[in-house]
Amino acid sequence: MSRSPGRKQENHKISRELFVLTYGALVAQLCKEYEKDEDVNACLDSMGYSIGIRLIDDFLARSAVKKCRSYSETADMIAQVAFKMYLGVTPSVSCNSATGNEFSLILDKNPLVDFVEELPAERASLCYCNLLCGVIRGALEMVHLAAEVSFLQDRLKGDAVTEIGIRFLRKPEDRKHRR
Amino acid sequence: MSRSPGRKQENHKISRELFVLTYGALVAQLCKEYEKDEDVNACLDSMGYSIGIRLIDDFLARSAVKKCRSYSETADMIAQVAFKMYLGVTPSVSCNSATGNEFSLILDKNPLVDFVEELPAERASLCYCNLLCGVIRGALEMVHLAAEVSFLQDRLKGDAVTEIGIRFLRKPEDRKHRR
Repeated sequence: MSRSPGRKQENHKISRELFVLTYGALVAQLCKEYEKDEDVNACLDSMGYSIGIRLIDDFLARSAVKKCRSYSETADMIAQVAFKMYLGVTPSVSCNSATGNEFSLILDKNPLVDFVEELPAERASLCYCNLLCGVIRGALEMVHLAAEVSFLQDRLKGDAVTEIGIRFLRKPEDRKHRR
Repeated sequence: MSRSPGRKQENHKISRELFVLTYGALVAQLCKEYEKDEDVNACLDSMGYSIGIRLIDDFLARSAVKKCRSYSETADMIAQVAFKMYLGVTPSVSCNSATGNEFSLILDKNPLVDFVEELPAERASLCYCNLLCGVIRGALEMVHLAAEVSFLQDRLKGDAVTEIGIRFLRKPEDRKHRR
């Protein structure tokens, strides 16, 4: 029997459409199960977290990135390397705080909502893509960076862009002392 | 504000790992919800069906394939074009019946189970990838080809290969009469 080569040599790319529709099925299933949007959001975040803590190994192995020396570098890495690698898009990054520990990833277009026109009226508080926040949070935690990650704007809710906020929970000074 | 180009011009590829882990989260969620493997399998099949009837438009638009003139051509198309496009793998195809309406897609490696070691003992009847059967069934139905699609072998269950059986429900003669 012919065998495929090991994972490293394989084609790691698949078509986005199947992923987007499968993700939609997952969200729809959770909406069936949980009446409250907050519960769906929490469940998506928690699932994402479990994915993030596993995906980080894959990311480090395939990206061969070096250790980031600042939160700013970390945010750029998430946007320019991780988003590009996993979702095929590159959000822009902005720093939102004088203390340098809050960043926004801004997506003009969110690849996860290709087939979603708008949220149903009764699901106005749903963070449809909340899985992504969990993934980022889980992956960061595995490289010892505690962070809060949440949607600040969402085009599905009528905002001009989709914006994911990342707030690193230690102050930059704490990191300096550890060098 | 800069806008991304329309869908046709975009990068349609994403990394498989995120999809595989998200699919795993979906299956795990259904296993939490349904005690019986048969119910999980039916739910995955039904979700897949809903995906298939939407994915077919994307497939026809992007593959630009011509109308298949036989079940055999259709099976080859699924394996060589659709699987390649959406999952990055190409199963081999075999015909399983003298009447020419039963085929097997044989996968030496199933990209959906990259992170799955084996099924838990209490989930011995779970068809982990049953979503795929539903997708194929739904997509075929949209091109007026009724079919039964199911797993005949599964490496997750200790079989040597993963085998998806497709049984077209009209006899080839019926198709000839329609020419």
